[in-house]
Amino acid sequence: MYIEVPLDHFSLKNNETFKLRYLLYRQFHIKGGPIFLYTGNEGDIMMFAQNTDFLFDIAPVFNALIVFAEHRYYGESVPFGNRTFTKPEYLAYLTTAQALADFVYLIEELRHTFFGTMISFDTYPFVAFGGSYGGMLSAWLRMKYPNSVIGAIASSAPIWFFEGLTPCDKFYETITTVFAHYGTEHCNTTIKSTWDVIRNVTKTEEGRKLLSTIWNFCNGLETSNDVDKLVDWLSNIYVNLAMVNYPYPTNFLTQLPAYPVKIFCDKLNSFKVDDNKTLLEALGKALEVYTNYTGKTKCNNVNITSEDLGEFAWDYQACTELIMPMCSTENDMFETTAWDFKNYSDECFRKFGVKSSNRHWPILQYGGTNLKYFSNIVFSNGLMDPWSCGGVLRNVSSTIWAVNITDGAHHVDLRGADPADTNYVVEARKMHVKAIKKWLDIT
Amino acid sequence: MYIEVPLDHFSLKNNETFKLRYLLYRQFHIKGGPIFLYTGNEGDIMMFAQNTDFLFDIAPVFNALIVFAEHRYYGESVPFGNRTFTKPEYLAYLTTAQALADFVYLIEELRHTFFGTMISFDTYPFVAFGGSYGGMLSAWLRMKYPNSVIGAIASSAPIWFFEGLTPCDKFYETITTVFAHYGTEHCNTTIKSTWDVIRNVTKTEEGRKLLSTIWNFCNGLETSNDVDKLVDWLSNIYVNLAMVNYPYPTNFLTQLPAYPVKIFCDKLNSFKVDDNKTLLEALGKALEVYTNYTGKTKCNNVNITSEDLGEFAWDYQACTELIMPMCSTENDMFETTAWDFKNYSDECFRKFGVKSSNRHWPILQYGGTNLKYFSNIVFSNGLMDPWSCGGVLRNVSSTIWAVNITDGAHHVDLRGADPADTNYVVEARKMHVKAIKKWLDIT
Repeated sequence: MYIEVPLDHFSLKNNETFKLRYLLYRQFHIKGGPIFLYTGNEGDIMMFAQNTDFLFDIAPVFNALIVFAEHRYYGESVPFGNRTFTKPEYLAYLTTAQALADFVYLIEELRHTFFGTMISFDTYPFVAFGGSYGGMLSAWLRMKYPNSVIGAIASSAPIWFFEGLTPCDKFYETITTVFAHYGTEHCNTTIKSTWDVIRNVTKTEEGRKLLSTIWNFCNGLETSNDVDKLVDWLSNIYVNLAMVNYPYPTNFLTQLPAYPVKIFCDKLNSFKVDDNKTLLEALGKALEVYTNYTGKTKCNNVNITSEDLGEFAWDYQACTELIMPMCSTENDMFETTAWDFKNYSDECFRKFGVKSSNRHWPILQYGGTNLKYFSNIVFSNGLMDPWSCGGVLRNVSSTIWAVNITDGAHHVDLRGADPADTNYVVEARKMHVKAIKKWLDIT
Repeated sequence: MYIEVPLDHFSLKNNETFKLRYLLYRQFHIKGGPIFLYTGNEGDIMMFAQNTDFLFDIAPVFNALIVFAEHRYYGESVPFGNRTFTKPEYLAYLTTAQALADFVYLIEELRHTFFGTMISFDTYPFVAFGGSYGGMLSAWLRMKYPNSVIGAIASSAPIWFFEGLTPCDKFYETITTVFAHYGTEHCNTTIKSTWDVIRNVTKTEEGRKLLSTIWNFCNGLETSNDVDKLVDWLSNIYVNLAMVNYPYPTNFLTQLPAYPVKIFCDKLNSFKVDDNKTLLEALGKALEVYTNYTGKTKCNNVNITSEDLGEFAWDYQACTELIMPMCSTENDMFETTAWDFKNYSDECFRKFGVKSSNRHWPILQYGGTNLKYFSNIVFSNGLMDPWSCGGVLRNVSSTIWAVNITDGAHHVDLRGADPADTNYVVEARKMHVKAIKKWLDIT
């Protein structure tokens, strides 16, 4: 379904609107039941609907209507059609405040359509759900518009991943822990050792050709810039492997086996000591766990790690409003990089033609670490998820709960129940149901 | 002082900024004391600083720093200088959300300047104060940004004066009560009888000339449109007289004696029964209480009722976002008028070239009548203030208080202590101090 929403909710420059997409699942809905609203994040809403079976699992318990709302500038919800990503002036309305206001509009519309009421906030309660950036949005929706949603299940939402709140080295440190924990032998130290090997071998044209061949790149590695891209591509794959290191095969960012980090490390482990060529070949094989699990990938592109996420639009958000400082050190398995705001910001300006917002804006807008004035939010985090380092891991009050899934990956609790689920995630989902019942006053 | 703030906090179309003015009073400030922030409303901030002595009266008790922040598009804080009011595209950033974000920016800047800290929200608490629309803003600031201000004293803040929340006839009904209560004899019924007389006499050119002369207008009443303006002008004067019917002489909207409604009614009462000319003459004399208390006014202009308020910018706000439905009926002393949204909206479009926002936007944005999720706000209202009908008159929770001043006019509690103060306002001010001490944890 589609709803017309204002392009700009907070100034009156124009009366332009655009179509925001949402998905509606009525099969579990019985009159009187609540509305479960997934606050969409940085991708096509279909992908999130297909990877958030938890809502479908529990909807029958509550007789709930399920709604998945797409985030503006992703999927089909692009305000300027094909032109959307061509000019800074078209991208300008891609901010969290605008996205939250879209959801508030949609909630009003649905209340009106389904229940014929607008002002009675309590009678037809909406519960927000979201994972990752979508979890940040669901928490912020409850914080900023507590009369629009009665509560929020914010899964793997790194709401504190901003300057001054989380040290920049925690993200890569957590990933290193995941590879150390799930990997065979010294998987993380082996990965750490590859960076020098890669930098060395790609110094020559011959070396770059070799690597292109054994790692099956669509386009050769021609310049040192391409090598930097290659390093980023590798890093992103490690990040993604840790994020989706689920205990059963999934198709979220890409098709993957159960515990892909473990499989990756098994394959990497096949190299011969002191033989860099076998190390690079082993790494090539290991990477295929991520890039070619189906066996159907023809070749690899260093510019792409996921087909489904709206990476351009997300980069814009990460460049402007949602600047999350990251750095790697000698203590993690990544190539060492410092956090340099100026450099980051300059690069963003080159890419998008706009300056980064006030660096503290997300903190000013959403209150930083002080959550005591808010209520009815569950922050759940898989502790084996890199993003958990920016999340809320301790209970804040009697109405703001932290639910930690000791062995969990990225928003694993929002996935459907599976025989391979660990006890931790099973318990986490029970806590979610308990919280929602409390908010809805169901005994 | 001035601070550079972004023109548009919620989209990234441009990086334009403008200078927002604020006034700083340090004389009572001692290190460790809180910051009292007056959230400016629709006028030059100097006017509000000069009419809000309550802050100066209590600052020494708290060792508080006092800040008066000007509202964008008023006083000196006009984003486009002289051009500001010439085009819809310059006016577009005049919304409550942008104004609140300005205050949040200023709070950050002051924390940084005075205390060298940005993120520690609790250490240097800000308390918001505001009267009327400024009171709405102080309440909304606490509701939307609870980490920026520890609490808000929202005086005479009609936060429920929106469609569906307050019946449209309550405003003029309340004013009628004020004139009935403070006026001599049948002041309100006499006023009600004047409308037909005015409409009749102004049907002819001769009559319009007569009225122009005896009421001392700068420009004659030439068309029936001028007569409509005259009726609006009269109505506005009655509204203002009720609003500022303080128990001592004041100079807020204009220079006035103590209890101006009483003086007005005394003078109106001098007409002879069944003699319309003496009625109009008596009304002319009575109006001088408002228009010429100083004896220095040369002539009257039907387009102006207060020199100090930014009436054009306020009309824009009342036309776009803050649409407050008003109507008058046979039961009040005003000329009968219906509330017609379409008509209102069309008129606004003619005047400003922009369409009114979604009529429910203020309710969606600020939560309507459901305040239970918010905390630390005192809503005070003079019950003899017309705007009290859209205010919060009952306690909501242990942290949201209503303080009613039975005999009070518009935000009388924010004025300085005066020997003529009634007990009700004295008690209200004590409640404010009690609330602030509670928020600051001072025993």
